[in-house]
Amino acid sequence: MAITAVGSIALDSIETPFGKTEDELGGAASYFSLAASYFTEVCVVAVVGEDFPTEHLELFKEFGIDTEGVKVEPGRTFRWGGVYGYDLNQRETLYTELNVFENFRPRLPDKYRDSKFVFLANIDPDLQLEVLRQVHNPALVACDTMNFWIERKREALQELLKKIDVLIVNDSETRELTGEPNLIKASRTILGLGPRTLIVKKGEHGALMFSGDSVFSAPACPLESVFDPTGAGDAFAGGFVGYLDYTGNLDEVNLRKAVIYGSIMASFCVEEFGIKKLTTITTTDIANRYKEFREVAYFEL
Amino acid sequence: MAITAVGSIALDSIETPFGKTEDELGGAASYFSLAASYFTEVCVVAVVGEDFPTEHLELFKEFGIDTEGVKVEPGRTFRWGGVYGYDLNQRETLYTELNVFENFRPRLPDKYRDSKFVFLANIDPDLQLEVLRQVHNPALVACDTMNFWIERKREALQELLKKIDVLIVNDSETRELTGEPNLIKASRTILGLGPRTLIVKKGEHGALMFSGDSVFSAPACPLESVFDPTGAGDAFAGGFVGYLDYTGNLDEVNLRKAVIYGSIMASFCVEEFGIKKLTTITTTDIANRYKEFREVAYFEL
Repeated sequence: MAITAVGSIALDSIETPFGKTEDELGGAASYFSLAASYFTEVCVVAVVGEDFPTEHLELFKEFGIDTEGVKVEPGRTFRWGGVYGYDLNQRETLYTELNVFENFRPRLPDKYRDSKFVFLANIDPDLQLEVLRQVHNPALVACDTMNFWIERKREALQELLKKIDVLIVNDSETRELTGEPNLIKASRTILGLGPRTLIVKKGEHGALMFSGDSVFSAPACPLESVFDPTGAGDAFAGGFVGYLDYTGNLDEVNLRKAVIYGSIMASFCVEEFGIKKLTTITTTDIANRYKEFREVAYFEL
Repeated sequence: MAITAVGSIALDSIETPFGKTEDELGGAASYFSLAASYFTEVCVVAVVGEDFPTEHLELFKEFGIDTEGVKVEPGRTFRWGGVYGYDLNQRETLYTELNVFENFRPRLPDKYRDSKFVFLANIDPDLQLEVLRQVHNPALVACDTMNFWIERKREALQELLKKIDVLIVNDSETRELTGEPNLIKASRTILGLGPRTLIVKKGEHGALMFSGDSVFSAPACPLESVFDPTGAGDAFAGGFVGYLDYTGNLDEVNLRKAVIYGSIMASFCVEEFGIKKLTTITTTDIANRYKEFREVAYFEL
């Protein structure tokens, strides 16, 4: 099977205490697709400008990522620039040039519409809804969002929440969406709005998954070298949805394993600048890191 | 066997968004001893004033806590007042009246000196060293400290670190002690200063234990009702050292279990004001919560 993923493809300029890059491949759909490509095929729906380097499209193809849904429009590609503070927990956006992304209207090629797994990266919830009107009968729709939409598009977002299976957000977004500081109470509120599963990403503190009455706390990988947190959340989603599509199993036991695979892809992502590490790992690296996660979290009954 | 625990006994006035209390039993030694008392006997070394209600000493005795080392001095008992903000993560100290605690010189009754397990709660590192000169041949010394001593008594603290086995601190203290924002790197630095084990408490994000090359990430219990975080760190230490003294086993597998028992006692502690919940639970409650922790953290290999 294949995942259909909809989101941004961008050219990012990033500065961290460890160095800087300029106009490198970025965007949620890029991170998601590369991470998921280690598990399954990904069909990407996105838009780029005429200035978008063809080598990036070739990179996608090399990783078995279908780019038929990537439209090239007249104009410049979406650009984002950001700088991280000394402990990498604080990020300042220097600029956001929407460019061709401003008029992005996701249009799915016919062959994408039967995808059983769909990932809606962080874009306007009205566009996320538009994507859902184009897919036929997905087994699982996972979705990201951000404070910007929570504040400005709450109604569309609530409409969307009724139609998705898994919401993947971070802890501050969870609190903002519900107005509730306690994450456990907040999770109940969100599950009451539609999704059957909520995943709360907590960066260096790991992730929580709520589904029904079950709570799963996944550890973070103890990393000594964190270079660039950009894209970690989308790499997480890529590992998570990728593993689910690969296994086709949506029970609790497998969802938990998928959260670990998501955490693994996020942990690789932050170890180098931008997408770099996501293009150089092997399936053996992934298997070894799974064992590391297990060792870190294991205690006897 | 029995643990010797040295630290403050106080009368606390606490305000949280959920209520307030005045002049209730508090202090690190109180939280530690009550939590540890579910596992083993505790011998407390502390000082109180003549105004200290005898009912608190009786409470200790009820929990099998030896109070021969609690000295009653002329004057008032140590008092602390604090107020917590809306999400309980921010605490403001309203006042600290040291009173009789100002001239505290820990003096261990003879029968305490053969204790195999020693806990040095957060007090002046010079006093912590003084305690160590009085114990004969402990199997394990665990120790807490705080930013105040890291800033003002670094030399004594470094002397102390050479003599202890387990340092139990929170994440900001770990970073301040080493000047290193990455917790994994910081842990190596601290293990290089003496302790063979470092435990980093992260509140609602659980705890990390570093020993040798091993890293253990313990989840936090998903709690819907957090009323008062006061004393959670000392309750953690009580569960941790208490379980180790009870089992007498210091291998990695057992240390990890001890971290979970520490987390369990901390999770109970915050569910009511002050020490209250630590006086009303049963060993069945503890066993059930252990299973909950396991369920929350478990994933298949």
